[in-house]
Amino acid sequence: MGFEYLTTVPLEKAKKDYMDLLLSNGMCHKTEKISVMEACGRVTAHAVYAHICAPHYHASAMDGIALDAKITFGAGETTPVTLTPDMFTVVDTGDPLPSGCDAVVMIEDVIYNEDGSAKLYKAAAPWQHIRQIGEDICAGEMILPSFTEISPSAIGAMIAGGVLEVEVVKKPIIGIIPTGDEIVPPCTDPKEGDILEFNSSIFSAMLKNWGAETITFPIVKDKLELIKATLAEAVEKCDAVILNAGSSAGREDYSRQAISEIGQVLLHGIAIKPGKPAILGCKGEKPILGVPGYPVSGIIVIEQLLKPIVQHLCCTDAEKSEYETATLSKSVVSTLKYQEFVRVRMGYVNSKLIASPLSRGSGVVSSFMKADGILEVPQGTEGYDAGEQVTVKLLRPKAELQNTLVAIGSHDPLLDEVSDLLKRTFPDVYMSSSHVGSMGGIMAVRRGETHAAGVHLLDEATGTYNTAFIKKYFPNGGVRLVECVQRSQGLMLPKGNPKGIHTIEDLAKDGVSYVNRQKGSGTRILCDYLCKKAGLDTSKIYGYDREEFTHTSVATLIAAGSADAGMGIYSAAKLYDLDFVHICDEQYDLLIPDSAWELDAVQKLLEVLKSDAFKSKLLELGGYGVHNPGTVREHF
Amino acid sequence: MGFEYLTTVPLEKAKKDYMDLLLSNGMCHKTEKISVMEACGRVTAHAVYAHICAPHYHASAMDGIALDAKITFGAGETTPVTLTPDMFTVVDTGDPLPSGCDAVVMIEDVIYNEDGSAKLYKAAAPWQHIRQIGEDICAGEMILPSFTEISPSAIGAMIAGGVLEVEVVKKPIIGIIPTGDEIVPPCTDPKEGDILEFNSSIFSAMLKNWGAETITFPIVKDKLELIKATLAEAVEKCDAVILNAGSSAGREDYSRQAISEIGQVLLHGIAIKPGKPAILGCKGEKPILGVPGYPVSGIIVIEQLLKPIVQHLCCTDAEKSEYETATLSKSVVSTLKYQEFVRVRMGYVNSKLIASPLSRGSGVVSSFMKADGILEVPQGTEGYDAGEQVTVKLLRPKAELQNTLVAIGSHDPLLDEVSDLLKRTFPDVYMSSSHVGSMGGIMAVRRGETHAAGVHLLDEATGTYNTAFIKKYFPNGGVRLVECVQRSQGLMLPKGNPKGIHTIEDLAKDGVSYVNRQKGSGTRILCDYLCKKAGLDTSKIYGYDREEFTHTSVATLIAAGSADAGMGIYSAAKLYDLDFVHICDEQYDLLIPDSAWELDAVQKLLEVLKSDAFKSKLLELGGYGVHNPGTVREHF
Repeated sequence: MGFEYLTTVPLEKAKKDYMDLLLSNGMCHKTEKISVMEACGRVTAHAVYAHICAPHYHASAMDGIALDAKITFGAGETTPVTLTPDMFTVVDTGDPLPSGCDAVVMIEDVIYNEDGSAKLYKAAAPWQHIRQIGEDICAGEMILPSFTEISPSAIGAMIAGGVLEVEVVKKPIIGIIPTGDEIVPPCTDPKEGDILEFNSSIFSAMLKNWGAETITFPIVKDKLELIKATLAEAVEKCDAVILNAGSSAGREDYSRQAISEIGQVLLHGIAIKPGKPAILGCKGEKPILGVPGYPVSGIIVIEQLLKPIVQHLCCTDAEKSEYETATLSKSVVSTLKYQEFVRVRMGYVNSKLIASPLSRGSGVVSSFMKADGILEVPQGTEGYDAGEQVTVKLLRPKAELQNTLVAIGSHDPLLDEVSDLLKRTFPDVYMSSSHVGSMGGIMAVRRGETHAAGVHLLDEATGTYNTAFIKKYFPNGGVRLVECVQRSQGLMLPKGNPKGIHTIEDLAKDGVSYVNRQKGSGTRILCDYLCKKAGLDTSKIYGYDREEFTHTSVATLIAAGSADAGMGIYSAAKLYDLDFVHICDEQYDLLIPDSAWELDAVQKLLEVLKSDAFKSKLLELGGYGVHNPGTVREHF
Repeated sequence: MGFEYLTTVPLEKAKKDYMDLLLSNGMCHKTEKISVMEACGRVTAHAVYAHICAPHYHASAMDGIALDAKITFGAGETTPVTLTPDMFTVVDTGDPLPSGCDAVVMIEDVIYNEDGSAKLYKAAAPWQHIRQIGEDICAGEMILPSFTEISPSAIGAMIAGGVLEVEVVKKPIIGIIPTGDEIVPPCTDPKEGDILEFNSSIFSAMLKNWGAETITFPIVKDKLELIKATLAEAVEKCDAVILNAGSSAGREDYSRQAISEIGQVLLHGIAIKPGKPAILGCKGEKPILGVPGYPVSGIIVIEQLLKPIVQHLCCTDAEKSEYETATLSKSVVSTLKYQEFVRVRMGYVNSKLIASPLSRGSGVVSSFMKADGILEVPQGTEGYDAGEQVTVKLLRPKAELQNTLVAIGSHDPLLDEVSDLLKRTFPDVYMSSSHVGSMGGIMAVRRGETHAAGVHLLDEATGTYNTAFIKKYFPNGGVRLVECVQRSQGLMLPKGNPKGIHTIEDLAKDGVSYVNRQKGSGTRILCDYLCKKAGLDTSKIYGYDREEFTHTSVATLIAAGSADAGMGIYSAAKLYDLDFVHICDEQYDLLIPDSAWELDAVQKLLEVLKSDAFKSKLLELGGYGVHNPGTVREHF
């Protein structure tokens, strides 16, 4: 079964040892000559010198007349000088200076007489309005030093200096080899057990962003000989190779063996999470990186270990990441053994930068897509508490984060639609939503960590929504409750309702598997309340402990036949064409602290809520009652 | 002669009126469907929803065995549970969960018995090590909102969600029409009067950086009908058109007429400098921008007026420029009438950001290439004094500026070579040189505005270099004089020395035209001294007031036949194959303040000065004596 122990070398040591090995094996950038016109963004391989001067002749800098400055001396407001046509030459901007001339007078300052002579009321200074030879660039002068990115204006300077071809650093070619029996090319209807091969597309896009070119090889089955053959071909064609998947120590993982038989393995296993089973190998000066199959692990391994190599081969300066201090909204537990990379959503609330950890599953590629930053938990650290100040690497420009509307609270698909409408209407506003349930949202508002919180909390005593909770948690007020929608809550059931579920009581029936929402969510509180009212012992409901974080996740599991019932909103049931037993209409509101009220992003949010586009979107989703969204229900 | 008055509309009003007109004429982005794999960096035209769940089946998250969690309940360190082979299924990561199973136990935790049964010392929790359907993405969920840039991980998320094609905002196509009788395509040997057409290459590179595609049309002669015909074709094919040159009001400037006959002219003339003769026109919803011929004017007009339009058509957020407060090293005089854009070199010295204005000639494209920032002098402001705090728009990342070695002082081509060697040896160090002469360099050190200053100042009293000046200007010390080179100063003369110049006295001969260096430069001071010693009246030397800022510029003018003599160093004469009359050997040193001494960039500079590569470069340049470059001659 081939389980082997992996090393746990600290990241920095692994990076250094790997780079040292590759350099000592002769890894070096290559160069190529290209047309200057195509060179924007490329990096000079050598210093570039001008072949000719710019301008290459004395040129008139104005439309006007060229003359010998001496003949104008003495001209003044009351003592104009008159020049006969033989004493000057009409020139346009860019015209060569006629011989014997050393000044140009602007056309605006020339008064023509009827006989073609010209009158000047001001003397010309020698060399005025003339672009002298080499004013811009002198022949032989260095235009650009080595290893410098070529800007648009540098292209102009090179052409002006008579340089039409430039030797630049060649883009390194990185080969990507996807492997695995279960891996299939991207398609829209994969079979059970098929794993869509999207890692290559992610890696290729990352590498191109760093200045490399990529070749993605066809998917290779889990056969050592096939993997070795493709690896040999890739090493031949490319400057570096990524061997994807098969880097852990499972039964079909031939990566390590293939790399060591083609070249050498420096180490297998790094103390990072995700990404620990990475393999650092090479053939001579060419890196071969064994990358884990989970997308998030792969992204982190490539970012940490291949990016410095690509930058070395591109002769680009290692980009300085921007780090900022942020307040952590949830605690993060880490293991002492690994350096961990936690994706976080971010935004500025009350001028504090808030970081909310995203899913840490290494298969959850959407967590990387949603991430605004990376919290790097050092090796030997047990993690951080909620509220702690942490240093976060920014993945988005700070200016964007400063224009980000932070919403933390209850989930509803309408929030995604709001974020879409916001972006369509106000392209400079970003919205970042985290789903932590209604109570989580209230707490986030209390801690000053969100601009808005979706809430739908039923007060058992009064049967009303939200108000009682807000009074309790905000005894001194300072928050507004903004009307959003009424929505239909009920039981989502497989199409045709095969288990005959009609009431809450039916959930406890034998053979019924339930899927629940997480504690603290409004839907969970409603379900707990309904069970209590019906006198149901929830420990008798099979699956009551199986918790999901969104209405859509619950609907997904029911649609997939993995559960027989779950509570959620009508729009989620409709999306999956599920049966739905209506239980109640509930008020879903947005809680907004006074401190955020005047913010541009919040006012734009209200505008979107009031828009017709929002209303028609709700109609499309279904199950929503719409009265006065965007208006203040109560100011506490 | 067709001179017409241009309007001087303030920039902000011109921008707003232009955008309003284009929007009311229906200017809008276009969309296209492309493969998701090719979509990195593109902008979504609509919200993107998942077609399928990711994962689309319950998948094992580990290599191990799948089982019904219930059969493991009660297992513990001392109470292992033994499972017969029919009670579990061996699974690899990614395998579908077999029916009847709801947990996976990692291979590491499974002890196999010889009969094929397995022993577990720990109970499995239901749903452990399983990636449930939709864990990453649920079908129907919004993956990306509208108008969002597609990142590498978003490509992964879309493919995982079964989305293989995505509708993105189409890149707008911008047509560029170069016009002018004197304009010729880039070449290495232009004739006198030819103007190399490099504006299109600059504009095209800028526009591509902002997300557009470009079509550059062949150069059009200054004939109204030809310009109109090309303009009509370009408006047909493109989403916006740049008509380059001919936007001023000179005699062959048909741009305004052509635009108004094809479409309409909103206004002609904006209160900006450079760039005032811009023409804002359109045909229907398609902008037609008449752009001045000087490259710097053109760059500024396109940056200010076309960039917002391109970003609108790309549905990208108007990029936030980064502004910083800087100390101005030289005064900037501006006119009240125009908003002025001054290119500046920048660097951090003593944690102060220093901005040094570059050449303001609108034909000097190299000034844009060298610029680290733009000082925007508002309309109605007369300019700023040296030492004043000003707000500057950064053109380079702040991190780069923080790693920039600032050298302000005397010019020598070896400084360019030093900057090249620095970049080759230490890719993260940048060097920014400004040529203000030796005295300017000493003053910059005194004001704390430079890390190093090239100096070669002859003390007339002692005949020694530099020391006396430093003692005078730094009575309290705090600076080090670092040896650089001995260099040969003399008279540069046209090849063959046609005017028979052999001594300083010969400069005053009839028919000899001299070209001088600027006041404050070491070479000028030397020349003044030599003239004084020889009893020469410098007002008798023709051209003594004609000032250039570098040795190379002086050599260029002599090589071009525009002057008969000039003083400069041997390497500049050699570069242009000029005759050279040696006058003296002078000491060219670098003055470095103690406050900068420990800086990484300064220490790296010293390392480069001491290198063999530097010495062999000097040998190549010629005329340099090399003893101990990089060592401290004196610490004051």
